[in-house]
Amino acid sequence: MYFQTFKQITKLLGQMDTWFDKANDYAKSRSFDPNVFVGLRLAPDQFPLSRQVQIACDTVKRGAFRMAGKEVPVQEDTEKTVDELRARIKSVISYLDTFTEKDFEGITSRTVPYPSPAPQWKGKTMTAHDYFMEHVIPNFFFHTCHVYAILRHNGVPLGKHDYLGSITHR
Amino acid sequence: MYFQTFKQITKLLGQMDTWFDKANDYAKSRSFDPNVFVGLRLAPDQFPLSRQVQIACDTVKRGAFRMAGKEVPVQEDTEKTVDELRARIKSVISYLDTFTEKDFEGITSRTVPYPSPAPQWKGKTMTAHDYFMEHVIPNFFFHTCHVYAILRHNGVPLGKHDYLGSITHR
Repeated sequence: MYFQTFKQITKLLGQMDTWFDKANDYAKSRSFDPNVFVGLRLAPDQFPLSRQVQIACDTVKRGAFRMAGKEVPVQEDTEKTVDELRARIKSVISYLDTFTEKDFEGITSRTVPYPSPAPQWKGKTMTAHDYFMEHVIPNFFFHTCHVYAILRHNGVPLGKHDYLGSITHR
Repeated sequence: MYFQTFKQITKLLGQMDTWFDKANDYAKSRSFDPNVFVGLRLAPDQFPLSRQVQIACDTVKRGAFRMAGKEVPVQEDTEKTVDELRARIKSVISYLDTFTEKDFEGITSRTVPYPSPAPQWKGKTMTAHDYFMEHVIPNFFFHTCHVYAILRHNGVPLGKHDYLGSITHR
């Protein structure tokens, strides 16, 4: 299930990438610079779109590498344009594509550092399973849905299909 | 993992309930009726807060009952106040609390109806597993995060701790 959830998350990151096609189209139709989206927020004391994308990306990248017991590749948060954010998303999809079911075997005995830089958490650990359930999944969705919400709030005509992508049916 | 994910979702529904304490406090501090929140939206053609709560609730209630092969209890979407929405959330927490790990055994061979009333999906099915991964989880988080985003956008001082609740560490 860990691997399968990361596969589903990879799919949703691919969907996020497509939202920026609609964002670019919308900006063009209204004759504004699509990179305006990068700095938009839902509240003045909430992160802008760029940071929401970066955290969604980092949450799952760190999640997969830590849970697999591998060193996490570091990426700087320097994106200032829609194209740079899309490249960041695609880079994380590429990272996730390197994982196989085997990487998550034996996870039940693995622990990870508590995922907060705050001093009170120094030295604390979580089981890889708790980290996955209580940090990786809810935070990935939180920031991904905020990317969607910021775009939608600002006029980009996104719908549920843009979020979910195609559904496997019989 | 199915059962454990529903436990985590139950916790997050409990967190959602607490957001309305902060919403009520904020409304009081600014002398407006907290039930104004019920009709707020992030975009004119997106669902209001009430519907976001109802769909988050229904997605996981239907998810658990269908995946367990049980008849889904029907609830009418009649909520017009914050108190009524909180009662809806609590009712779904109560439903989810009745499930045990045993309810999700043998799920790999179970199918569910495709979760859309649209005519083109009539008669289509999904495996319970695909339904869980591609519909229940992403839709629950989508609507839950939109409840959070609508409140946050409208001034309620929510933070990540309100969303995640307490984290299990060692």
